[in-house]
This record gives sequence, structure tokens and C-alpha cells, in this order.
Amino acid sequence: MSRIISPEEVAKHNQKSDIWVIIHGKVYDLTQFLPDHPGGQKIIMKYAGKDATKAFEPIHPPDIVDRFLAPEVCMGSIDLEKLSHVKIEETEEDKQIRLAREKMPRLEEMYNSFDFETVARSVLKSDAWAYYSSGSDDEITMRENHSAFHRIWFRPRVMVNVKDVDTSTEMLGSRTSLPLYITATALGKLGHPEGEVVLTKACKTRDIIQMIPTLASCSFDEIVNAAGPNQAQWLQLYVNSNRQVSEKFVRHAESRGMKGLFITVDAPQLGHREKDMRQKYSQEDPDEISRNSTEVVRDQGAARAISNFIDPSLCWDDIAWFKSITNMPILIKGVQTAQDAVLAAKYGCKGIVLSNHGGRQLDFAPSAIEILAEVMDALKRENLDKGFEVYIDGGIRRGSDIFKAIALGAKGVGIGRPFLYAMSSYGVEGVEKLLDLFQSEFEMVMRFMGVTKISDITADMVDIRNIKDHFVANPIDYLSQTSYERMQPRGGSKL
Amino acid sequence: MSRIISPEEVAKHNQKSDIWVIIHGKVYDLTQFLPDHPGGQKIIMKYAGKDATKAFEPIHPPDIVDRFLAPEVCMGSIDLEKLSHVKIEETEEDKQIRLAREKMPRLEEMYNSFDFETVARSVLKSDAWAYYSSGSDDEITMRENHSAFHRIWFRPRVMVNVKDVDTSTEMLGSRTSLPLYITATALGKLGHPEGEVVLTKACKTRDIIQMIPTLASCSFDEIVNAAGPNQAQWLQLYVNSNRQVSEKFVRHAESRGMKGLFITVDAPQLGHREKDMRQKYSQEDPDEISRNSTEVVRDQGAARAISNFIDPSLCWDDIAWFKSITNMPILIKGVQTAQDAVLAAKYGCKGIVLSNHGGRQLDFAPSAIEILAEVMDALKRENLDKGFEVYIDGGIRRGSDIFKAIALGAKGVGIGRPFLYAMSSYGVEGVEKLLDLFQSEFEMVMRFMGVTKISDITADMVDIRNIKDHFVANPIDYLSQTSYERMQPRGGSKL
Amino acid sequence: MSRIISPEEVAKHNQKSDIWVIIHGKVYDLTQFLPDHPGGQKIIMKYAGKDATKAFEPIHPPDIVDRFLAPEVCMGSIDLEKLSHVKIEETEEDKQIRLAREKMPRLEEMYNSFDFETVARSVLKSDAWAYYSSGSDDEITMRENHSAFHRIWFRPRVMVNVKDVDTSTEMLGSRTSLPLYITATALGKLGHPEGEVVLTKACKTRDIIQMIPTLASCSFDEIVNAAGPNQAQWLQLYVNSNRQVSEKFVRHAESRGMKGLFITVDAPQLGHREKDMRQKYSQEDPDEISRNSTEVVRDQGAARAISNFIDPSLCWDDIAWFKSITNMPILIKGVQTAQDAVLAAKYGCKGIVLSNHGGRQLDFAPSAIEILAEVMDALKRENLDKGFEVYIDGGIRRGSDIFKAIALGAKGVGIGRPFLYAMSSYGVEGVEKLLDLFQSEFEMVMRFMGVTKISDITADMVDIRNIKDHFVANPIDYLSQTSYERMQPRGGSKL
Amino acid sequence: MSRIISPEEVAKHNQKSDIWVIIHGKVYDLTQFLPDHPGGQKIIMKYAGKDATKAFEPIHPPDIVDRFLAPEVCMGSIDLEKLSHVKIEETEEDKQIRLAREKMPRLEEMYNSFDFETVARSVLKSDAWAYYSSGSDDEITMRENHSAFHRIWFRPRVMVNVKDVDTSTEMLGSRTSLPLYITATALGKLGHPEGEVVLTKACKTRDIIQMIPTLASCSFDEIVNAAGPNQAQWLQLYVNSNRQVSEKFVRHAESRGMKGLFITVDAPQLGHREKDMRQKYSQEDPDEISRNSTEVVRDQGAARAISNFIDPSLCWDDIAWFKSITNMPILIKGVQTAQDAVLAAKYGCKGIVLSNHGGRQLDFAPSAIEILAEVMDALKRENLDKGFEVYIDGGIRRGSDIFKAIALGAKGVGIGRPFLYAMSSYGVEGVEKLLDLFQSEFEMVMRFMGVTKISDITADMVDIRNIKDHFVANPIDYLSQTSYERMQPRGGSKL
Repeated sequence: MSRIISPEEVAKHNQKSDIWVIIHGKVYDLTQFLPDHPGGQKIIMKYAGKDATKAFEPIHPPDIVDRFLAPEVCMGSIDLEKLSHVKIEETEEDKQIRLAREKMPRLEEMYNSFDFETVARSVLKSDAWAYYSSGSDDEITMRENHSAFHRIWFRPRVMVNVKDVDTSTEMLGSRTSLPLYITATALGKLGHPEGEVVLTKACKTRDIIQMIPTLASCSFDEIVNAAGPNQAQWLQLYVNSNRQVSEKFVRHAESRGMKGLFITVDAPQLGHREKDMRQKYSQEDPDEISRNSTEVVRDQGAARAISNFIDPSLCWDDIAWFKSITNMPILIKGVQTAQDAVLAAKYGCKGIVLSNHGGRQLDFAPSAIEILAEVMDALKRENLDKGFEVYIDGGIRRGSDIFKAIALGAKGVGIGRPFLYAMSSYGVEGVEKLLDLFQSEFEMVMRFMGVTKISDITADMVDIRNIKDHFVANPIDYLSQTSYERMQPRGGSKL
Repeated sequence: MSRIISPEEVAKHNQKSDIWVIIHGKVYDLTQFLPDHPGGQKIIMKYAGKDATKAFEPIHPPDIVDRFLAPEVCMGSIDLEKLSHVKIEETEEDKQIRLAREKMPRLEEMYNSFDFETVARSVLKSDAWAYYSSGSDDEITMRENHSAFHRIWFRPRVMVNVKDVDTSTEMLGSRTSLPLYITATALGKLGHPEGEVVLTKACKTRDIIQMIPTLASCSFDEIVNAAGPNQAQWLQLYVNSNRQVSEKFVRHAESRGMKGLFITVDAPQLGHREKDMRQKYSQEDPDEISRNSTEVVRDQGAARAISNFIDPSLCWDDIAWFKSITNMPILIKGVQTAQDAVLAAKYGCKGIVLSNHGGRQLDFAPSAIEILAEVMDALKRENLDKGFEVYIDGGIRRGSDIFKAIALGAKGVGIGRPFLYAMSSYGVEGVEKLLDLFQSEFEMVMRFMGVTKISDITADMVDIRNIKDHFVANPIDYLSQTSYERMQPRGGSKL
Repeated sequence: MSRIISPEEVAKHNQKSDIWVIIHGKVYDLTQFLPDHPGGQKIIMKYAGKDATKAFEPIHPPDIVDRFLAPEVCMGSIDLEKLSHVKIEETEEDKQIRLAREKMPRLEEMYNSFDFETVARSVLKSDAWAYYSSGSDDEITMRENHSAFHRIWFRPRVMVNVKDVDTSTEMLGSRTSLPLYITATALGKLGHPEGEVVLTKACKTRDIIQMIPTLASCSFDEIVNAAGPNQAQWLQLYVNSNRQVSEKFVRHAESRGMKGLFITVDAPQLGHREKDMRQKYSQEDPDEISRNSTEVVRDQGAARAISNFIDPSLCWDDIAWFKSITNMPILIKGVQTAQDAVLAAKYGCKGIVLSNHGGRQLDFAPSAIEILAEVMDALKRENLDKGFEVYIDGGIRRGSDIFKAIALGAKGVGIGRPFLYAMSSYGVEGVEKLLDLFQSEFEMVMRFMGVTKISDITADMVDIRNIKDHFVANPIDYLSQTSYERMQPRGGSKL
Repeated sequence: MSRIISPEEVAKHNQKSDIWVIIHGKVYDLTQFLPDHPGGQKIIMKYAGKDATKAFEPIHPPDIVDRFLAPEVCMGSIDLEKLSHVKIEETEEDKQIRLAREKMPRLEEMYNSFDFETVARSVLKSDAWAYYSSGSDDEITMRENHSAFHRIWFRPRVMVNVKDVDTSTEMLGSRTSLPLYITATALGKLGHPEGEVVLTKACKTRDIIQMIPTLASCSFDEIVNAAGPNQAQWLQLYVNSNRQVSEKFVRHAESRGMKGLFITVDAPQLGHREKDMRQKYSQEDPDEISRNSTEVVRDQGAARAISNFIDPSLCWDDIAWFKSITNMPILIKGVQTAQDAVLAAKYGCKGIVLSNHGGRQLDFAPSAIEILAEVMDALKRENLDKGFEVYIDGGIRRGSDIFKAIALGAKGVGIGRPFLYAMSSYGVEGVEKLLDLFQSEFEMVMRFMGVTKISDITADMVDIRNIKDHFVANPIDYLSQTSYERMQPRGGSKL
């Protein structure tokens, strides 16, 4: 391990039968490991004889090398001085991103979450954009998540003294400046070299709760360490087929002060995200692919690779076991029906997140806001609503969306992608700015609605007749629309 | 004050530490005032050492200099003769507007209010267009205001003698040629150098009521003076945090013969109008901005500056006080629910305006026409509808819209933006022409509906089944649509 | 009258103070008449000293010269031989139409009514296209007329012997090959030099009823004379303010064998057809216009001029008078509510046409098909449906539309514009072809629906749940859409 | 028959009065037959003196020459060696298709059925694309078939052990890997030189049932012979006016082991498929056409020609006869109402296919999925649902569509066009890949819905409120939209 190796030497080991790769300053001989790589051989071959750190980092947890590679495949340390002189040619994509970053608007010009999304689309690498932005199948649920809020209208009250408006609230016992948390999303380093700690830092200055993802690019402890002394954080958990792994993780999280455990239950397998798959495919060398047709899941890339430990056999009976290993409040993330909301309460959970995983799992799953009212009704009917906290996520993009959720009974809302976009384009300041925008919009809506504190917000302030009738216009189906040949009349020459 | 100063001398005082500016023929030393300017330093610096009158005038009331500046900062009068020789370079925008004005269609070619809007868009300065045309957030309520009328259909009766049709009516005791008034809108001089008196003059010849805005570019008395001897006018009031200011204003208005007092209650703070904000921002010099990052509200510009006196603590209890200071009929402008309509009647108001402020305040507030039927039902249920006058504004663009409002119980309708557009492009004649178009359209609709006078119009003449069910299709969300990346099938080469 | 005048001589009289014009081979001195021309002076001045026949003919009834001009203004006959040598310069529009006509598709390629509309758009003069194709205001009713059929779906029955399908039926006692008639439309010579007789000839070979319009380009007798011995025709009547004119017309029509009298009641004034108005306006010389600003109705042109005799005081009491002057069955054309349908029956009419005048009068009038079911219900409730014939027109473009109308209770449907388009582009053969297409489509629908004769068609064969709930999506509002400035996110450079 | 004829000799017989044509290596004198050709003379004349095999093959059954031509018109065999040297010029279309095929994406890049459709559109000859892709009239039913699925949303259950999911089921007593069969579609060789056996081969490896069409390009026996030993196949039957032909066919099919007889009842005549008609028309020589105007049905081409044997007099009474000639379970394909579903059960059928023939027959026929729920309700009400198998086809493009059909009571779904597209572009591997995609999508949906086997799927898992209310938005009407001239405001120059 102590040997210093020159880049030139590494470069010689650049074929399947003899492949070395540099990761985080160390040189590894991956010749044996190559066929076992869950993400496919292709991506490793791309860095044969080279430094793979930048590609490796966003999609692997920091400790994975030690867990998967035997110590003897580490051939030594790279000569960092010499490595720094190795000229890395700028790719066309890197160049375009560099130019786009130079032309980025000032942060002061960002007026809403869509501005961040649009900027992010121009400055993110295409694999990051594809991974963050994609939904499953025809992305109908993903788009519905946002659209459903637009079927809800306000009933604003006037002539109320709204001089002082207080947007703060309490979620799972922690005080927070807004009924909003940054929800768990994977692979933060795809968007920003520092990864999820960027979100942590912004949460600190704005008094916002962050839900830490199992599949973070940063290690769990890095994220916790970045938090302030009284900063509340929650843990999102993908349950491992190997329950000992999960148990260890949960116990450690509790010891680090997590205020809630959110068990994700809508991902027994990975959704079919076609934009992401197409992007992954196009990066590969087609000739290589055809010659290696056995690598069938290759095109689902990193996301599939990192998620295949998730246990599809998870069921209600497992709740008892979780309660036996932790005192954290347990919440079920991914509930999509009133029946399951009731079951969660009956099994002794502290709450639920109504969520369809950002439209990334089952297409045509209903949006959380669409079913929120019927969920609250069912809980009340069963007398299970007291002390049971219902959160929603998916499609929240405006302060008005937050208000609608609170009015219909949510304790708070989770927001994911917009913060990834803010983080990817502007770092900590971007996330803070977006939080400020949500704060400002939400406070304004409260004022215009004639309320001054969260507990004033009631269900009769929103008009949900369209929701009750499930009045959903036909969603746009881009694939079908594009492949269809439109009819044309036999025309004249003047048109 | 009597000293005559040459333009050359003024031009020397053109920096932050020593800044003179010409306004209305006087020269002011604004060096001390600069940091206190509610609209930001930027816009003043733009005119350092120069004549700022044209920029100053549309967005400041005429007496503001005396109210805000100490007499000693007035350094004297500008040498008007010499000033007239100072060559002012035509900006690119001014040039384009000049050319557009040369190509303006003749007034005879204007067939509807949209024609005026389209022409105005081409001949207005971008700051005026942005201020007049923008709505809040995603402008969904602003667009819904007009769209909602399109969900109401007619039930026309035939074989009725409709030779003579009378469109005249009475509103708050004043006779008028149409159940239509020009509603209060701010900053008229942005669109026309003469400001709101343009509207006053057209109202005079067409026998139409004008509602005078608190935030007019012209002074209140200028507008009243422009009216004819029996011309009815109303006053729109933003209630000042300093109630003495409001009291003085109301008493003065009553003494000048105002026929009604309309208290605006939907603006406890200014709405988030992003088009206007972007336009304001783009006018500034970005480098300056970054160096002055403390000026955080600068980009909300004049609108925010002139509106921050409005009292957010206004509430129902204040009605008694208003009744104690005036005998004018008091109406609440900005009611948006049946509950508040009932409260207004119970608190002894003479009427209400159902309004969401032209979609400029709370996005997803319902349109006035949408809630009109349920408001009338509620008033009747409570036996409060007799003598209580209900007006609506927002989205009225056709004679058929007016008919629908009357059929559902409105006493009259307020129209704002279309008259700003007519005024800005064609002055008094434009406003008169647009009033003639409304007259002609409304009379035609009455004839086709088989009625000959306003009191013949009844609720069974309109089909509001879609309104009753609140069947609202998903509004178009341009920001979300634009930032979304559409799916595409993996295509062939022939397409 | 016998003097032969040369074109050169006529050409000298080409100014307001001395103007001669050639019409149908005669030379008229119009100097005195000029200011009285109902269609404005402009259009006459365009032909000062020239042959005006081609412009005159489509929009004037043949006998109008004798009725309006004194014999002495006829200066003699034009020298036809010399006139034929006068070179008439081809206008740009005429040239484009000539080229478009050369490229017209073959008649065999016409598969539906939209093909004819598209071809007509390319080969019609712009004034004809504007007059035929326009609707009133935002053309929302005009478009709804067709769209409403699309909210009705079929319930087709299978396993029925449909070898032989009979599409013939009886309307007002006359046998016809289809439950379809060509409805009355004005100014046929705008589209085809022979005018309405083109339709008559096609009706003859296809056994179809034609409704003769009051405002035909051909004289009434020309149209009747063109018919075959047993060919049924109906008369459409605009009631004249001078009832003697109407009486004379009706009595004459009865004597010529008309089988039905359809009194139009939805046009107490002319609708506001903006496309038509814009087209008329653009043809005039703007400078002339501004100098003659008193000609205020000039831009409504011929249509207004020829229609201002229509009596807006027509009412139900007039029915008795009509019954006193004719034995023809009387039908009311333009009924738009169930209440008026019931009244028509109670006043002893033989039937009605549910119609909104092709969307050319009141915008937001409901489509005929939309109200047909409630009209039939009301008639049945009042026991007035037996022997009372209900027709509809507006938006019928497919055989399936005809079937839907019959299923909901119509005795037959009127079709207008499509036949104008077929006539204008292909003459008699075009109209025959379109009739054949309707025959073929309608027969096919009957076969697929499992019926073999008209009387088999029943209301339960169509699904009208959307109609019952009046489930109308927001119509497209092109003017508003075009003048609106869409929101855009602050974007990145990559998009 | 034994004479060997040279291409040069054949080439001499190239006119109407003396025409030879080569088909499948034989030379035929078609001079006498020419006027009797059901598909018109034009298409034969195109191959006068040439080899017509490639054009002949896709649209004629293999044994048709023997059935229609007398032995003596066969003049002998072509000299194959010499024929192979005859240079056939590549048409522009053939060239473009060749180039498109070279650029075809790899099969691995196909992620859904729309990808196959898009690729097929680029590599199919225009006549094949037109025939496969077209629907009737305005193609509203065709598009609705797919859209209707989008009005159904899921109610997914979580926390269910979904480790092992079994998608297999039984249809008409045969085990199959998916509740999906490849339904009958005509003229397979238009898309692939081997025709329907391509589908057969893919069904074999994927354990899927194929429904063999009456109008296959391959002979029935070719298709059956291509199947594996235990591979289940069904027969689709167009009933011949000559019942003996049908009897012979049915008896033979039963002897070859068909597991079900599907009698098509929605095609008493051919639908009006305008895209197909236009394509056919444009291929012909217009000059020829005009000179032969008697060939009136020529433009409906092959499809009409091959289908005119279908008996439009087929009715319920015929079921008894079918039961007398076969023991195969009899199913009615093309039922579109609950009433007919009940009748089918009462007449002793084994089941039905709810179908509108892929939107190729009656436009505005409801989609199968739309009526499925009411059909199941009706059958249950009449106690006829046990053992009665209901299938649907039309618009199924995703695994989620299959799940929705099963949830609402279907035993399985038929899919047609997508497999034609997969077959046409990638042959057997393409069909297999598409089957794999459906398998993968359907299994994923089952997992996300919380079910592990077909029988777990229940009606309460889907939200069909929109379907129950038949809430159908106005379909897009491309012809009408294109021919309509949109309104435009009188605009300014800046836009």
C-alpha cells in the first residue's frame, strides 16, 4: 500500500486482462473484480489505466472499496504530483457546461423553483440531469404530482389583521421555521462535488429539517457531522434483505440523534425510468455492447446496481421488529391509500408519508395531494388521527402548494428535486435562496388567506370539488403523441 | 430656489457622494436622500446630473417632493432654455416604440379589447407593459379570470320584440349608460403622459363611472377637476397605517362629491408579480447590483415602494370608524367568499366588489364570476340582498361577459387593464372607442338574448352547470411546462 | 337606353362629381345615387368608369337595379365588342387563385367535407372566404357546433343482419334520399358565378331538399326554375319590416310549390363577424377612409347592407298573421331553448330548426345538438312531439353527426358551409360528390350501429352523459391566447 | 407449364390487350382476367411484362392463383437464372427505407412499444405503414382506445411481500405466461417477408397465444406448422357469405388443434380509413385514373378487395349453426355493449372480445376498457359471468394497461399493431423483445400494486370514477383544426 506508482505505469494496465484504475489516490488492480461489478464492465473499462475518482465518487458510498475489494488488489498510491500534470482533455459536454456556468443568472434573479430547475438543466451533466429529473414509464404520475395541486383553489378570507404571520411549526417534536423538510434523494454528488452536506449546511442556517437518504453520496456520518448542535435530522431507510445491516444502521442513526425513522415501502424494485435508461445507454460504446449481449441489466446502470439490496419481501409484520430495535418514531414512507394509512396507525407507527416516490416508481399511482383528504377522513373515522403525523411529498413547487397540503391535514411537506437543482447550480447559497423563496411565498399565501399561524389553517379554506370527483383530464402522453401520424386534409396550395 | 442653474453645472454632480437631479424644472441635491429612497439607489443614480422628470413622473404622486424633501435641497431652477438644447440620445427601446407607433393600426380597425391589448404591447415601454400586464406567481388566477366566463353558456330566447334596447342602469344611485365602470388601476402615466385624466375625459363623453385610484399618477384633484359637472366618480382607498392620512383623504373626497368609497382589502401586502420583477431587474446594471447586495427589495421597484404604507392590520372592526368619518356609501373591494360577503352586509356596508385584484395578489384565488352565484345565494339566504350592491371585476373582455355577470346578480362590472391599453395606445379616443365597442357588443347580446332592458336579465338565461360543479380543467402552467423535458420515443430516421 | 356607348367614353366619367359604371352591359350614371349606396361609396368609386359587373353580381339580387335606380340614369348600352378588347389587369389575388385552381386535387381525392373546406380556402377570393367562413366574436359557438358532436359516443349493436340499409326518409311530407337538406346560405355567387342554382342541380340528381335563402345571389325564380318536376324545395324567410314585401314573397313562393316556410328568428341584427369585418376593411383605401369618417358602418359591408331590412320587432304574435297568408307548413328557424320549442308548437308551427345561425350571431349560444335532447324531452312532457318536426343545423360534418342527431330526435339536419365549399371549388360535381360522401358515411354508420332503416335509430344508441352534464371543456380563445405574454423561467444557456 | 420462358419474352407482353406477368416463378397471361381483378386493373398494369411477386405476395393468400386462374393461362416457368440478372431499379422509397434500416437503433435500445412504432414508421413502405397505422374517419376511436386507459388510476397497496410474482394465467384452458395474446391482424407480409409465422415463432419461445387471422398473408397451415407441439393458437374468422367456405375452414382449423374460434362481428363492411385511401390513391397514376373513371372503388385497394366476401347478414341465429359444425369454444369478437355481451352468453358462446377493431371500423365507438366495467356488471346481474371469458383489445401499450383490464374483469387482452411494428422492424427478435418488455412492465406493476398472482388483482385496485361518469374530454379533431383559420388580434409591430 505504501508504494508510490506513477501515472505512466498505471496507464500500461489498460485492458480487460490487466486493468488498473486510480480511485481516491490509490491504485487498484481490478482484473479479477471486473466481471462482478454490479454496474457493468463498460464503465470500468472507460477508466482503464486512468483516474476514475470523479466518476466513481457520486455513485458509490465512501466505504465501498473496503467492503468489496480485498486489500491485496490495492497496488499502492498514485504519485499525486505527477498525476496533477496529466492533461485531462475537456470533453464536449464538460466544455458546454463550463460555458453555461459562466452565463448562469445571478442568484438574485431566481424568483421561483422553476428558475432553479431550468438553470440546473443547463449546467448539470447529462447523466445527473437524467437521474434527477426522470420519472417512470410515461412520467404521468410525475407530472400529475404537480398538476394535482392546480385542481385545488382557494377560498381566501379578507379583513383579518395579518400584520404578523408566523410560519413556524413542530414536526415529530422538533421546532422548524416552515412546515417543510428536504426529503431524501440519492446520489447528491452527481449534482455537487460536496454532495448532501450542502443541503445540511443550508438547513442549518434556515432552521429546516433534512431527511438523510440511505443512498447518499456522502456517508451518513459526514452528513450528521455537518449539522449544527440542535439541528433536527431524520433518517430515510431502504430495508436491506440482510436485516443485520439494517439493524446496525438504525441503531447507529439513533445514537447520532436522528429524530425519526422513515421506512421507504414503495420501492420493492426499481421503477422503469426511461429517460435515465436512454441516457445511460447512449454513453456506452454500442459496438462493445453488442459483443457483450449477456450484460442485460447494464443499461439501468448505477441506480439499479445500488438499489438491488432492497428487500421486496418487507411487510407489515416487520414493524414489530423495527420497534424492538429502536425508540425513534417510525413512519412509513410511500403509503398511497387510505387503507394502508389506517394499517400504519394500527401497527403502531407514528405517522406516514403519502408519496409515490416522486413519480419514479409506479406510473398512474395517484398524487399524494389527491388522496390526502380521503386519508385524513379514514383516519378520523377510525379515530386514529390524534398524534399520528401525515406528511406528503411530490410536486410541491410553490408556497401555495404547501398551504393546500396543510389545509387538507398534512403536518408538513417533503420537497426533493427543487433542492437538488438549487444545490447543483448554486451550492449552499442556492439552497438557502430557495428556502427563502418558499418562506416568502408561504408567508404571503397565509397573509392573503387571512391566517397568521399554522394552526389557523383549515380544510374549508380550499375548494377540492375537482379532487373529490377525481376529475382528472387526460394526461399528455408524449410518446404516443410523437409516434402518431396526424391526419391532414387534402389541401389547397394557398395555405 | 430662485437661482437659475445651467444643465452643464448640474451634469457635474453625477456621483454618489455628490448627486444633483432635475425634476419638473427644479434642481435637487439628493446626496443625503439617496440611501433612503424607497425605490432603491440604482434608479436615481441613472439620472445623476440629468433631468429625471420623465422617469419620475409616472410613479410618484405630484406632491411627493414637498413631502419627502427638505426645502434646502432644492438648489434652484434649471435653465429651461438651455435644457431644451441638451440632446437626449434616443434609446433602442424608444426608437422601436417610435417606429411601432408609426405603424399603429387606425382606430377604426380596432374591433375588440384584444386588439387594444396587442397594440399596447407593441407601443408601451417594457416597464409599463410589465407593470400593467403581469399577474402574481404563475398567473393562473389572472388567466382564470377570463377563462371562467367561457364556462358559462347562454340560453337565448327568440321571437321577442327587440327593436329598442336600453343598456342604461343605475349604480350607487348614479345613472350610467352601461352596467360597467372603469376600475381603479395605479400609475396611469406609465402608459400615457397625461395619466388617469385621459380616462376621466372619455367617461365624460360616454356617461361612464370612473373609480379613482389611491395610487394614481395624477393627483386626486386633477382627476376630479377633469370631470364634467354631473359626472359620477368613485374613490378606491388603500387604507394607510397612519389612519389620519386616510381620514383626511376620505373627508376631502367626500367634499369633492365622490359617490362611493371602495376600500381595497385584498392587498395587505404586494403580490409576487414575477414578470414585473424580472423586467425591473433587467433594467438595472448587474455589476452595481452585486456590489450593493444589501438592497434586497430593490427589484420590486416602484410598486413595492409606493404600496408599503398599506395597513395589513385592517379588519372588520375598522368599518365602524369609517362610517364615523364619512357619509359616502362604503363598499368592500376584494371580497372572495360568500362568508365575507355576508359579513360585509352585516357590518353595514353598502356593497362589495368580488375581486381578486386582477389576479395580481393571491394565485389560485377564485375568479369573481365563479363565486358570484354562490355569493348571491348566501346573501338571499340571510335576507341581506336587498339594496346591497354586488360588483365584480377581473377578466371582463366582451359584452357577453358583462351580460353573464348581470344575469348572475351583479349590479355592474369593473374593467381595468383593457382601458389602460386603449389609453396608452390611442388616448381619449381609444378609451371612447373601447367603450363604444363594449356598448355595441353588450347591446347586441341583449338583443340576441331577447331582452330590452337590464332588469329583464335573469339567472335562468345562463347555463352555469360547469360553474356549480366547479369543473375547472387543469390550468396551463407555463413555467413548469417550459422547464420539463418531454419524453421522446427512440425514433427512426424518416420522421 | 338604345344608345351604344364606347368603353373610352365611360372611362372619362370616373370621379365623384361625375361617375358612370357598367353593370350587366348597361351604362349607369351613379353621380346622384353615390351617397345613398347602402354598401358605401368606396366600393362604387373602385369601379368608376369601369365594368363593375363581377363585383356587383354576387351581392345584389338581379332585380335590384330596377328597384333602386330611376330609368333616366341609364345612359345606354356598352359596346360589348369594344368592351371585350379592354384589357383587364389580373390582380395578385386573381393570379394566386388561378394558380391554385390549376393545382386543385381531383374530385376523386376528396374523402370528406374538410377536404372541400381546405381546397375552398385556397381557391376562394378572400372576401368570399371571409364571408363564408367567419363566425361571430371569438367564434366559440361556431367551433362548439362541431365539437359538441364529439362529446357524444356510440353504443353499437352487433350480430344484426345489415345487408340492406335504407337511408331514405320523409321530411315535411317529401321523400328524400337522406335525412339531410342543404340549408339556406346567402351570397352564393361569391363562391361560384352561377350561384345557388349549382346547389339546386346537385339536389336534383341526388334527391335532396334545398332550402332557398332570402338573400340568394340568384333570384328566387331562377332557383325554382332550375329544379326538376318533383324536386322538393323549402323557403327560408327573413321577415321584412315592411310586411307587404314579405307577404308578396311568401304568396309567390307558395304558388311556386315550396313545401315549407322557415322563418329565421335569430337575426334581429347582424352578428359581429370580425374576420369578415377585417377583410372588408383591408380592401378599402385607408386614406380615403380617414377623410370620410362619417361612413361608420362601411366596414360591415355588403352583409350589413343587405340585411338591414330584417325586422327586429318580430314576435310570437306574428305567427297568426303568417298562418293567414299561407298554407305552407310554418317552421321557426333559430330556436335555442326548450321553452321556445314548446312555444313554437303551442303557436301552431309545424316544426322548428334548432340553430344558432352557424355560430354567426350570438357567441356562447349553445350548439343545436347540445340542446336537442332537452328539447325533445320538453316537447314530450307537454305532449307536443307528435307530428312536430325538429331539425337541427350547425357543425354537421360527418355521417356520424347525422346519426347522432337522428338518434336524439331530429327529423333531419341542415348543412350549409360544406356545400358552399364544394360548390365554390368544384361546382355541381363537387356538391354531388359531397352528397355521395355523406350518403356513404351515413349508410356505413347505420350498418355499424346495427340498424337498417331510419326508424330503427333510437336514443339509447348514443351515450350523451357528457351532454347531460353540459360537460364543456374551456374553449380555445385565440385572441386572448395570442395577446397574452407567456411566462418563462429564467433559463440556462443549454436549452 | 413446363416451358421455360425468358424475361425478355415476358417483357414484350406489356399492354392491356396482351399482358403477361410473373408470379412466384410462373408466367401468367392475364389478358382475360384483367377486368375482373378485385383490386383494380391499375396495379396489374404496373407489372405488365415484369415480375409481380413482391407486390402480389403480401396481399394474396398463397393458394389464390389456383382458385382464380384457369390452368391454361399459365404460359410456363420463368428462366430464374436470367431473371436474376434483370436489373431492378431501386425506387426512391426503397432507397430511403434501406438507409433508414441501416440507421435503425439496436434492439437493446427499445424500451417500450412506442419505440417500435416510431422505428416501424421509418422503415416500413408507405403502403404498409398506411394500412397498419390507419383508423377510420377522424381516428378518434383509435386514439381514444389508448387514451381511455389514462383516465384510470391505481390504488397501490404497500407492505406486501412481493418477492415472487407470477404473471402466468390460463385462457380458454391453455396455460400462458401472460394474460396477453397476439391478436389477429391482416396482411403480415406487408411488414415482413415471412409474414405471420414471425409472430408464431416468437410466441413459441415466450409461451404466448397467437390468434390466427382469416386474412393472413401466410396460409393457415403455414402458420400452424410453424408452431411448437403444445403451442396454443386460436382462429379468428370472418364469416363468408358462402357458408360452405366457412364450414370447411372451421372444420379444418379444429382438426389442426385450434383452441378457440373467434367470430369477428364488427366488420359487416370495411371502415373508411382515409390515410390508407390517400396513400393508395397517391400511388396510382392520376392520368390513367381520370381516363378510367368507372373504377370507382379502386382507391380502397387491396383491403376492400380481400374483404368483400364477408357476410353482412350474419346474426345471432347463426350461432346455432356454428355450434353444429365445431366443438371449439366459440367467442364473439367485436362486442361493444353490455346488451350484446349478455346476448352472447345467452346464445351459448364461451366468451367475447370487447373490441372496436382497433378503431378501424366505426369512429366514436367506445373503447373496450371504457365499457368493460359495465359489461362485467351486466353479466353478473344476469348471473352469466361464471365460466364466461371476457377479453378486450384496442390501445394496450403498457403493462399498466394490462393490469387495468384484468382489474376490471378481463381474462386477458389482445394486442395487435405493436407486434406488427416489432415484427416489421426487427423480425422474431423484435417480437420477443416486445413480449419481454410487456412481461417486465406487467410484473413490475403487479409488484408495485402489492399483488403476486393474477387472481389477487381486484376491481378496487383501480380508480375508475372518470370512466363511470364517462368523463371524456373533447378529442382532438385534426382535420377540423387544420382547415380552421385561427383568429388573430390586429397586432402591433413589436410582437
